[in-house]
Amino acid sequence: MTELHDLIATFAAIGSTGDGGVCRLTATPLDKEARDLFLREISRRGLLPRIDPIGNMFGVAVLAPASKDVVIAGSHLDSQPTGGRYDGCYGVLAGLLAVQAVRDRALDNPGTARRNLAVANWTNEEGARFQPSLTGSSVFAGSLSLEQAYACKDGDGVTLGDALAMIGYRGASPMEFEPVRYVELHVEQGDLLEGEAADIAAVSGAWMTRKISVVFEGEVSHTGPTPMGRRRDALRAAARAIEALYSEVERANAGAHAAAARISVFPNSPNVVAGRVRVWFEVRHDDEAVVLAISDRFLQRIEKEAGAIGVQISIAADEQRAAPMLDPAGFDMVRSVAGDLGMKALALKTVTGHDALAIQKRIPSSLIFVPSQGGLSHNPREFTAPEALDKGYEVLVETLWRMVTAEG
Amino acid sequence: MTELHDLIATFAAIGSTGDGGVCRLTATPLDKEARDLFLREISRRGLLPRIDPIGNMFGVAVLAPASKDVVIAGSHLDSQPTGGRYDGCYGVLAGLLAVQAVRDRALDNPGTARRNLAVANWTNEEGARFQPSLTGSSVFAGSLSLEQAYACKDGDGVTLGDALAMIGYRGASPMEFEPVRYVELHVEQGDLLEGEAADIAAVSGAWMTRKISVVFEGEVSHTGPTPMGRRRDALRAAARAIEALYSEVERANAGAHAAAARISVFPNSPNVVAGRVRVWFEVRHDDEAVVLAISDRFLQRIEKEAGAIGVQISIAADEQRAAPMLDPAGFDMVRSVAGDLGMKALALKTVTGHDALAIQKRIPSSLIFVPSQGGLSHNPREFTAPEALDKGYEVLVETLWRMVTAEG
Repeated sequence: MTELHDLIATFAAIGSTGDGGVCRLTATPLDKEARDLFLREISRRGLLPRIDPIGNMFGVAVLAPASKDVVIAGSHLDSQPTGGRYDGCYGVLAGLLAVQAVRDRALDNPGTARRNLAVANWTNEEGARFQPSLTGSSVFAGSLSLEQAYACKDGDGVTLGDALAMIGYRGASPMEFEPVRYVELHVEQGDLLEGEAADIAAVSGAWMTRKISVVFEGEVSHTGPTPMGRRRDALRAAARAIEALYSEVERANAGAHAAAARISVFPNSPNVVAGRVRVWFEVRHDDEAVVLAISDRFLQRIEKEAGAIGVQISIAADEQRAAPMLDPAGFDMVRSVAGDLGMKALALKTVTGHDALAIQKRIPSSLIFVPSQGGLSHNPREFTAPEALDKGYEVLVETLWRMVTAEG
Repeated sequence: MTELHDLIATFAAIGSTGDGGVCRLTATPLDKEARDLFLREISRRGLLPRIDPIGNMFGVAVLAPASKDVVIAGSHLDSQPTGGRYDGCYGVLAGLLAVQAVRDRALDNPGTARRNLAVANWTNEEGARFQPSLTGSSVFAGSLSLEQAYACKDGDGVTLGDALAMIGYRGASPMEFEPVRYVELHVEQGDLLEGEAADIAAVSGAWMTRKISVVFEGEVSHTGPTPMGRRRDALRAAARAIEALYSEVERANAGAHAAAARISVFPNSPNVVAGRVRVWFEVRHDDEAVVLAISDRFLQRIEKEAGAIGVQISIAADEQRAAPMLDPAGFDMVRSVAGDLGMKALALKTVTGHDALAIQKRIPSSLIFVPSQGGLSHNPREFTAPEALDKGYEVLVETLWRMVTAEG
């Protein structure tokens, strides 16, 4: 599928970090450049372009003019600062070509399509510039209000609402078709498929994720003369908490994943003991009880350890993403499609968040993985072989075909 | 000395943080505003205004027209982001009024002054925006080249050279008089004077300070699926190092001071395990051997601890400021002036860096402290009572008078 590989390479050049990776943060000029190109590709293929108020983009193939129903395939064009070229982009571009392929097949088989079909690019899936992540898909699903989403601020205090307006991607109204199913194709970002030499994963659901952002409040003072016993060092309390998170995960010994990857420090001057620090923590596990046990114990521990050095903690955000199941019928369909195409398919749960998980709150959603070499992700060396990309594309096309033509 | 208190209040309004504190970082528009006002105050008092290539400002009283020699009194107008209103500003403004007072006394006593006298404002004492600190005084003393100073970059990559040019404070040539002595009046930023109910400290020298900036190099990866054992988390290694610094200082049990107050994290996204982190560490003690023992042991420990989790460390900067002595004759003179004025004077060493320490490398320098309430500094609640400020001013005037009139 040379066209798919070429499209991925073209988009990878927008925000290229020169080492194989991509930095294309939400609503930046580079995101606009990718969006503009995607819009041209939609129109060039005779699809109907649409932009909704949170900047989600759609390219609709009207296959069933008497129906308002639409099946959607998509993913996201934004990336992490150290993003790979496949994460998100693959699902959008394979979705674009798959919508075109299904449209052409429907034209060759008049009367078979019962629903319309669209490709989508969801705004700010990554949550790198604006938190929370999965912003566009959550607004689309109705679990996040447009006002809340607009109010999200980046590190410089710019709101997502303003940033979208600035790049011209704040649409006037929601997409007018009625979504009935969603399918997302994505690279695995783990190494289970590679380990099993499988082609495809049908994803049944997700791990639970709890994202907790904690503020440590100490007191600014001079790093020189302030007696050690009198320092209320918020950065020291934060450092202890980062290590405490790792040690609580090890102690639980349940296979949970955890991270502390973002920090902000005030005033962040070499000569002023930090007065206020915020750290973004997360804990993930298949079993919600494990996530809650580890994270609650962690919070109790850091409150005590911070208090011992005169630092108060407060919870600035506590987002508990339950371990959701994706649509069982879609999961079965992906597995049977892969089988019919002679591919080896695994069933697994995703550790990472995906737009499909947000959209499942509104309509039945499905998620399909292809292998990631070495499981490497959010890294410029993220890689999936072209043949593996093609297999995912073939499964996507056939799955979408069945979804738009199925009875009932 | 109402004029002094009024001047301090006027300058505290420039960059006021609304809570009693001041944020006036080097070569920002607010620094320019303070510099412009200081220049007007110099000229209004009939002093000769001068700006040197690194932006140090002088107001010279030509008391001895046949001599090139000049005694300088000064400090700095820049502040920390959470600066108090006295730190630096007090020494500059008391210096301005003291130069004027000595000039007037010399006019009343023709022929007594043997040297000229100047007030100075040194560029970037704090090192909050640009590192290293003590920049202007170090260039003046010849221990830092102008090229090195110009090349210092702030967090946004702007150089000090460009920033000074932008605010119009990059002078064409060095100040033309020959400096022979320097005196700096400053708030203590500690609580020894308060504890002893003393009025004045004559400072004999300084603690040694070692400032080490360490880079932790791990690998970016997705915070979700990456197996815990495979993460090379640079932020975790940095967090361990911050706690290790505290514990090494405690273990040494020698009364050393240490801090880690500035950190930068790449990519600092909640969903990407940190690939590169830099932390600014410092260790201070009266005894150089103690500083070296603690900091060397600390570096060995963090290299091992980081290596154990796949993170490499490297030293980006290692600045060892030896424990210098200030000029003994100046120290004696300050003590005898305080005694003659009926004040209680202590002798002590400073923990913090001051321009006087940098300038001592070129000419005999002296440092005078007045009490700081509760020792609080780099904090909006920094406070010194007006009567205490006045006592320091009186000691400064008399000390400068003796220095410009002394024989030999």
